[in-house]
Amino acid sequence: MCRWLAYSGSPVLIEDLLYKPKHSLIVQSLSSELGAEPTNGDGFGVGWYGRPETPGLFRSAEPAWNDRNLRDLATHIESPLVFSHIRASIGSPVQQTNCHPFRHGRWLWMHNGYLDGFASMKRDLMMAVDADLFPSIEGSTDSELFFFLALTFGLTEDPPAAVARAVGLIEETARRHGVGFPVQMTVATTDGETIWGFRYSSEGRSRSLFHSTDVSTLRHQYPDNPVLHGLSDETRLVVSEPLGDLRGAWREVPESTCVIVHGGSEELRAFQPELGA
Amino acid sequence: MCRWLAYSGSPVLIEDLLYKPKHSLIVQSLSSELGAEPTNGDGFGVGWYGRPETPGLFRSAEPAWNDRNLRDLATHIESPLVFSHIRASIGSPVQQTNCHPFRHGRWLWMHNGYLDGFASMKRDLMMAVDADLFPSIEGSTDSELFFFLALTFGLTEDPPAAVARAVGLIEETARRHGVGFPVQMTVATTDGETIWGFRYSSEGRSRSLFHSTDVSTLRHQYPDNPVLHGLSDETRLVVSEPLGDLRGAWREVPESTCVIVHGGSEELRAFQPELGA
Amino acid sequence: MCRWLAYSGSPVLIEDLLYKPKHSLIVQSLSSELGAEPTNGDGFGVGWYGRPETPGLFRSAEPAWNDRNLRDLATHIESPLVFSHIRASIGSPVQQTNCHPFRHGRWLWMHNGYLDGFASMKRDLMMAVDADLFPSIEGSTDSELFFFLALTFGLTEDPPAAVARAVGLIEETARRHGVGFPVQMTVATTDGETIWGFRYSSEGRSRSLFHSTDVSTLRHQYPDNPVLHGLSDETRLVVSEPLGDLRGAWREVPESTCVIVHGGSEELRAFQPELGA
Amino acid sequence: MCRWLAYSGSPVLIEDLLYKPKHSLIVQSLSSELGAEPTNGDGFGVGWYGRPETPGLFRSAEPAWNDRNLRDLATHIESPLVFSHIRASIGSPVQQTNCHPFRHGRWLWMHNGYLDGFASMKRDLMMAVDADLFPSIEGSTDSELFFFLALTFGLTEDPPAAVARAVGLIEETARRHGVGFPVQMTVATTDGETIWGFRYSSEGRSRSLFHSTDVSTLRHQYPDNPVLHGLSDETRLVVSEPLGDLRGAWREVPESTCVIVHGGSEELRAFQPELGA
Repeated sequence: MCRWLAYSGSPVLIEDLLYKPKHSLIVQSLSSELGAEPTNGDGFGVGWYGRPETPGLFRSAEPAWNDRNLRDLATHIESPLVFSHIRASIGSPVQQTNCHPFRHGRWLWMHNGYLDGFASMKRDLMMAVDADLFPSIEGSTDSELFFFLALTFGLTEDPPAAVARAVGLIEETARRHGVGFPVQMTVATTDGETIWGFRYSSEGRSRSLFHSTDVSTLRHQYPDNPVLHGLSDETRLVVSEPLGDLRGAWREVPESTCVIVHGGSEELRAFQPELGA
Repeated sequence: MCRWLAYSGSPVLIEDLLYKPKHSLIVQSLSSELGAEPTNGDGFGVGWYGRPETPGLFRSAEPAWNDRNLRDLATHIESPLVFSHIRASIGSPVQQTNCHPFRHGRWLWMHNGYLDGFASMKRDLMMAVDADLFPSIEGSTDSELFFFLALTFGLTEDPPAAVARAVGLIEETARRHGVGFPVQMTVATTDGETIWGFRYSSEGRSRSLFHSTDVSTLRHQYPDNPVLHGLSDETRLVVSEPLGDLRGAWREVPESTCVIVHGGSEELRAFQPELGA
Repeated sequence: MCRWLAYSGSPVLIEDLLYKPKHSLIVQSLSSELGAEPTNGDGFGVGWYGRPETPGLFRSAEPAWNDRNLRDLATHIESPLVFSHIRASIGSPVQQTNCHPFRHGRWLWMHNGYLDGFASMKRDLMMAVDADLFPSIEGSTDSELFFFLALTFGLTEDPPAAVARAVGLIEETARRHGVGFPVQMTVATTDGETIWGFRYSSEGRSRSLFHSTDVSTLRHQYPDNPVLHGLSDETRLVVSEPLGDLRGAWREVPESTCVIVHGGSEELRAFQPELGA
Repeated sequence: MCRWLAYSGSPVLIEDLLYKPKHSLIVQSLSSELGAEPTNGDGFGVGWYGRPETPGLFRSAEPAWNDRNLRDLATHIESPLVFSHIRASIGSPVQQTNCHPFRHGRWLWMHNGYLDGFASMKRDLMMAVDADLFPSIEGSTDSELFFFLALTFGLTEDPPAAVARAVGLIEETARRHGVGFPVQMTVATTDGETIWGFRYSSEGRSRSLFHSTDVSTLRHQYPDNPVLHGLSDETRLVVSEPLGDLRGAWREVPESTCVIVHGGSEELRAFQPELGA
């Protein structure tokens, strides 16, 4: 049900994130090992921060492995914060407006998972979106609507609280519609400075999520590894599945956890839905 | 702002409707003469009735003039009732789910025009859609939402009344949002047996709409015209702009009118919004 | 490296061939079991014969499993002879003109496999194509060029001989360029009346190919199977991999063999390249 | 028959070239004033030079005015040398590999015009392409083949001479095939440092081509124009049609002329085909 990657650190070529790793996101689009489906060919997207106020966004309904424009872009664009996502749709149309990341102002959002019973809940959930935000909804996915609920609950002020309230609302709505375990998610969101990653599911069995070990720690473990010497100390990645198989380089994000990446530091916090929002 | 064509009569090859006429819809996609924009390259669609319960639908975000698959299809599919539409978008994304005709069960719907102030009215209008119909909305256009409002107001029972109520609701909603002349439309809808065409605008200056003169009448006027001898007496077309320049073959549908085509007969009725629906 | 299906028999809905079988071609596009790659998402195509002189063709660079237009078409078009192909590209661009089947006049052609060393041989092979046929080459694949070599060697007169000469030329050209095992193929070609299927490779280890057992024979084996009772006696399929798991329904086409399907009958002949053509 | 733009000067955002001017290339894609066809919706491309060895390339078969990815890219990429082209096809398929600019190593090439009688000449012309270059031909256009003929005749060593020889060969080949006026062209090519623009046609009635007046000269003419003060003195543009209507800012490139732009300087030379190459 999709795979994604979030990077924060010194500016890197997008190519270094999407194509170079042994088990890169492009490789995962053809055959992911830990995702719900092996193939993620229903579109992809890349968002990156640079000089302009708002992040750049490149989204396409084509499978990622085919895209020559993406390949070229990736060799020419450098960025200190990059989001990328490959999609495996379970129903909603494959179209550019349904590809992640979604963007609103300076914010980006990606989601791996689904909102179960979405068709029956969609109307109620759409009504909970702030009237001023409503016209900005472009697609038809649960993921995008989830983003707009988080925005409604103050994502730009306090992301963990906003996401907690959004999940709370979805779970209450689901109860009314008789849906048992509505939320399945790993989510990443950012304002271009900080990355917030979330791993949670109503059932307690969430999609995979990993975060990278501190680079200086890894250099001690692998003093001869040339790749590590090329990475800056601020390098941080949060990913659906590891990009390579260097032991110790990737640690699983626990269930019901929010991981916050800012500059070169990282923090893990417990995450749970907030009801009555 | 789009062009469309609705055909009813003996089964014809789709090619005969889309490609053969001198000023065919494909020609209009490159350069329409009477439309709001000359180029209508933001997607197209064809819907046709055959043996299956529901009509077939072929929609693409690509410009119509480029499409080889459409060309091939058109030479192989024969149908007694065909809807076709070429799109010029004024804002909403160009994607397959935003191309007309829209389909719901056995019904098709096409629209040339717009709902002014749609961004501000969208939320209210979406809330007016029947809860059971709501999950079927796939795209983000005013045209598709208009279709679902008509369905909510009983399109499948009494199309002219349903469209009148939908327009009434839109105009009342517009008043609340300070929009002066919200509705600009020519609309065609069908259940595969009857075609209902509408020409109306809040301002009283509607997009062009024509209906074809009775073929037997035309044969008397042009006894030597070979094309006319090939057409069956039941041939009826309702179009945004004439497909050819044979004088007398096309008559304008007046403002605020509903034209009903069934079998070989045709009827014009006054059309006005119904308030308080 | 692609999968394909060729059907001959009473007219059937394309949907019955592409979507209904348990292991349909659409399923194979997501995860084929016997192909060189599991995913075949680099485009697809369907060709079918009907009333017009030339067969209809629908090809798209999009993955087959996503395509709504294909789904609709398939429910509305009936044909007595259908070719369909899903593609896994190993280098040449993913574009409509590189999708199979290829069409020339009344003939269709599909290929699973490759011509090894194609880049170095391409110029020589293109020069071997008849000057009158040359302008009709639209894409950049080895498969299409192979088709045009077969046409040059008289495909429309004697397909087995023409394909034998084409393979012979390719192998001779390969020798000059130091390519050891140039040809890897299963090929299907048809004029709308007869289907010729080929299984051959220079190395003697060819891609999978199966043909269906006579339906009346199967009915004796499975007297209670309702699907079989629905099939006509003339039903014949030649496929890259079986569409279902009914034992005895599918027999492997041997290496170096040409299978000829005409009406309700079938013939297998030895196939080998013809040199010095 | 297409429109293009070539920029050389201080690094600028691609957005400033493609979107900001009053009569920008994006506007021209919807309605060009001087082109052979008003609409150029059969694809577009942008090539730009940056840090990597080879230029970046973004090409799409979609109409330029629709493309959101292009819009985003354009706001994020800055470059000192940019080529951009919008296409109106007159026959060859609309696909990414047929969009300009074409790239070979560090070189880019764009063409407005056609090679008349191409279908009959194609085989001969393809055979004149160097065997080592041949496998790099990806599409089916006359424009790309023209590029490869120029490469064969030493484009990377002496572009004016190479183009002269290529045109000479095409005209000689045309004579053999009874084509009267084979070449219609404005062409731009670059190695990332220098831009060579050509305006020539066998008939002497070539597609429009303009080059920009020296910026410091314009500043004297329009001391109050804010846009001019923002432009660097090295700014040079060679374009199919003027991007704005500032009088004196654009001068027509004469028939049979090669314009060479390097750094801040510019040179015009006579151009004529070279025979017997």
